[in-house]
Amino acid sequence: MPHKQHQELLSVLHECMEACNHCFDACLKEEDVKMMAECIRLDRECADMCSYLESAISRNSPFVAQLAKVCAEICEACGNECKKHDHEHCQKCAEACMKCAEACRNAAA
Amino acid sequence: MPHKQHQELLSVLHECMEACNHCFDACLKEEDVKMMAECIRLDRECADMCSYLESAISRNSPFVAQLAKVCAEICEACGNECKKHDHEHCQKCAEACMKCAEACRNAAA
Amino acid sequence: MPHKQHQELLSVLHECMEACNHCFDACLKEEDVKMMAECIRLDRECADMCSYLESAISRNSPFVAQLAKVCAEICEACGNECKKHDHEHCQKCAEACMKCAEACRNAAA
Amino acid sequence: MPHKQHQELLSVLHECMEACNHCFDACLKEEDVKMMAECIRLDRECADMCSYLESAISRNSPFVAQLAKVCAEICEACGNECKKHDHEHCQKCAEACMKCAEACRNAAA
Repeated sequence: MPHKQHQELLSVLHECMEACNHCFDACLKEEDVKMMAECIRLDRECADMCSYLESAISRNSPFVAQLAKVCAEICEACGNECKKHDHEHCQKCAEACMKCAEACRNAAA
Repeated sequence: MPHKQHQELLSVLHECMEACNHCFDACLKEEDVKMMAECIRLDRECADMCSYLESAISRNSPFVAQLAKVCAEICEACGNECKKHDHEHCQKCAEACMKCAEACRNAAA
Repeated sequence: MPHKQHQELLSVLHECMEACNHCFDACLKEEDVKMMAECIRLDRECADMCSYLESAISRNSPFVAQLAKVCAEICEACGNECKKHDHEHCQKCAEACMKCAEACRNAAA
Repeated sequence: MPHKQHQELLSVLHECMEACNHCFDACLKEEDVKMMAECIRLDRECADMCSYLESAISRNSPFVAQLAKVCAEICEACGNECKKHDHEHCQKCAEACMKCAEACRNAAA
């Protein structure tokens, strides 16, 4: 199974997708939604890209390295935004994003 | 975390997405690809729908039940096609699909 | 070309996807983001589902009717939320959603 | 409307997504499916990436340039594979892919 090589990356991407989508939902429920606008935007970007890359890896796409490079950049941007906010969902999301950014950079190399 | 209610469903969907995408890839490498044409088609349908539903659950979508109902039907169709083929990837995929179809039916109820 | 039967539906879905994604972006830039929270959430739901259905139709998916039924419901929910807001992007989005909901209901029948 | 800058790219991406998904469907119905295996694989890659980029542009994603760079590469690979086959759906798909690759390269620059 070719995609087994990427089993750990798949798992990290999945955690990041869940964390970002949960953060998206939780940000929309916060008192100060305006402060979270950039977080909401980047959560969606990051969740969608992680989900896309998961699928690409699973189907043994010939473009995993190139997609992982972009995914790393998106994860890092989302993680940097989330880090600014004290909400637990943001802090957890930042952690998942940074872990995923590193895994994606390795896959892109 | 609202999406924690669906944690087991998320995991079953993820396994099904991976099994279907792996089966898609493996079918395209088989000697007799023509025999696998319907399997290839349904693997993509099922992988994409499982992936979509994973994202929807993670973002606390208000439409999880309706999407899960359609996903159950797609999983069942894919599982029934895979069951016809002796390849290990098809048999494993059929199993993942049937398990996922049941989990989706429960989430749709 | 089997998917030509659905050429008008494809076009309506595409306009709705664009309108919802534009509304998502514009809502995040509004002064009162909190008031737009439900609109932001439903814009994403609707844009993603319209995009998914476009792809499904284009690949001649066997599940277009079932997906169109769910898409109609999501479009209607998004259109009803958008209608409440005076912003031009919301009003335009509401219109696109209602048109798309009707086209999807026809495709689902 | 920020995404209006990209209106032509959106239209080219949409045509490419439709051509690739139609080619995917038509290849699965050909007599010699085995010969079309790589075409089927790349049609899916290309359709999915074009669809992803359409959504990203519509929501004013900050990552359009990076995604367009990868999309250009995928379109080119798919176009080169399709060019090898005489089927009308492959020839039309090759043309749509090459046009889209160029538009994506411009957007990435």
